[in-house]
Amino acid sequence: MSENVRARMTENPGRILLTGATGFLGSHCLNSLLRLDSEIHAANVSGTGPHEGRVVWHGADLREADAAQRLVERVAPTHLLHNAWIATPGRFWSDPDNLRWLQGGLGLLRGFANAGGHRFVGVGTCAEYDWSLEDGICREDETPIRPSTLYGKAKAAMWSATQAFAHGGHFSSAWGRVFLPYGPGDTPGRLLPSLVASLTSNRPFSLKNNVARDFVFAPDVGDMLAHLLIGEAEGAFNVGSGEATRLLAAAGYVADRLGRGDLLSVDAGSPVTEPDLLVADMSKVEAVLGWRAPTTIAQGLEAVVQNPA
Amino acid sequence: MSENVRARMTENPGRILLTGATGFLGSHCLNSLLRLDSEIHAANVSGTGPHEGRVVWHGADLREADAAQRLVERVAPTHLLHNAWIATPGRFWSDPDNLRWLQGGLGLLRGFANAGGHRFVGVGTCAEYDWSLEDGICREDETPIRPSTLYGKAKAAMWSATQAFAHGGHFSSAWGRVFLPYGPGDTPGRLLPSLVASLTSNRPFSLKNNVARDFVFAPDVGDMLAHLLIGEAEGAFNVGSGEATRLLAAAGYVADRLGRGDLLSVDAGSPVTEPDLLVADMSKVEAVLGWRAPTTIAQGLEAVVQNPA
Repeated sequence: MSENVRARMTENPGRILLTGATGFLGSHCLNSLLRLDSEIHAANVSGTGPHEGRVVWHGADLREADAAQRLVERVAPTHLLHNAWIATPGRFWSDPDNLRWLQGGLGLLRGFANAGGHRFVGVGTCAEYDWSLEDGICREDETPIRPSTLYGKAKAAMWSATQAFAHGGHFSSAWGRVFLPYGPGDTPGRLLPSLVASLTSNRPFSLKNNVARDFVFAPDVGDMLAHLLIGEAEGAFNVGSGEATRLLAAAGYVADRLGRGDLLSVDAGSPVTEPDLLVADMSKVEAVLGWRAPTTIAQGLEAVVQNPA
Repeated sequence: MSENVRARMTENPGRILLTGATGFLGSHCLNSLLRLDSEIHAANVSGTGPHEGRVVWHGADLREADAAQRLVERVAPTHLLHNAWIATPGRFWSDPDNLRWLQGGLGLLRGFANAGGHRFVGVGTCAEYDWSLEDGICREDETPIRPSTLYGKAKAAMWSATQAFAHGGHFSSAWGRVFLPYGPGDTPGRLLPSLVASLTSNRPFSLKNNVARDFVFAPDVGDMLAHLLIGEAEGAFNVGSGEATRLLAAAGYVADRLGRGDLLSVDAGSPVTEPDLLVADMSKVEAVLGWRAPTTIAQGLEAVVQNPA
């Protein structure tokens, strides 16, 4: 985080609310927020989580009617980082729960506007962008927003609603479009955890394809979203590394380091229905936020090898 | 309406629900829908309106929690034309009620998805487009969506949410971006009613500027939205005439025909903060829907002169 932003937060640390605070990305957001002097409130369905002395936990299922508004009214945060959303591997792309999260998100926005909140940051996705373009370099204010999945459409709608509520409620807002997060705490069933689980059980692992993606280390995602939250920059910002890595290169690194490169293959027979390249253009983030992902792909993958669980 | 679409609706007329059915545009939508063989349900706050034998009226304030979902569950429409929204002249641009309409709209979408509805059409606005561009010709899939007002942002968010719910609920959807409607039943306080009220009371009337706008005759708006509702075309469609008319030309026609051209002027001292030109490119509508506004500006303004109230 830049020193001037950190200095301003030290003067007036505010009251931060983080939703989805024990999820894969939420946990990393929480770790980053704990470095601030702010009062930290965190919400998840159970109402319990780590750092109990430092964090005030709240139980709320934001998909339930009025739960979101009640939560915001209870906490009255100055800063809200809304990370909660369906993320079940495989299912999240088309699960109707996306619509309940969208409704809950609107309740959160409405409650935040009513409570006179100051700053709202939401978590979006690279799946908001048009993936049918030849050019797989995603630029926040140039690449068309044309999601093809329910998940992408619901996230795009949430950002669209955020802008409306921010305007109406006179709070400032930003939106982080996360690319392909990986790293500590990754959810079983996602790419690298599945790979590690297979190889450490001596089972072969076949990649569906060898597309190039923007892998971003999850602690870096937490860092950037916390940075975005305590700043004032308005608009959408990519949350990526800015580097494209082929799936076989990333998986191959992990397989080699685990000594099981022999178990890894690419299924050449599978039709590739996804774009060959999807990478974040990070120039807006660097120019406006002065932020750059601190972790290289080699460092991040090495961390996965060291802590594969 | 095209004959093949009308023929399909005659075979399977369905159950249509229209919201905001006694508003300026809603009244014209209702008139157009009455030409179909469908069962017509109409909603407004009072629950009463014209054509009582033919139309089933429902009272619902869609800004109230759960009112929208309850309405859709009660009616279980196959087709939903959602026209209700704040439209109070002057106030609608920035009234916080835009956010309550957005929330109500989401309830409507969710109820429609749950009830297995077939076709949803929403009413948008030319204020969704980026008005800062040099080129004032608005093209549905090219001109950036960058609304600068709360009204425009809330409408853009509603369309974004519509696409998400339509995808998740497996219903088809479209969106009509209305330009500058005028004609019978126009709301007091809007441009032409204000002009007529001034001139017929022998009071001078000063236009704030002489920008060029796409005036579209309100009965034509009703016709196109009904046409869109009973079709299957997906996406956003401009609802305009495709012709730009300067405010002084439109107002001048009415003033001259009322014999009071002497009372009309343009306030040359006012700063012009709006774009000089805003006009709908109607080529997508003509190509995809086979629809073209039947009323010329001269015919429409003559109707205003004949029925100025």
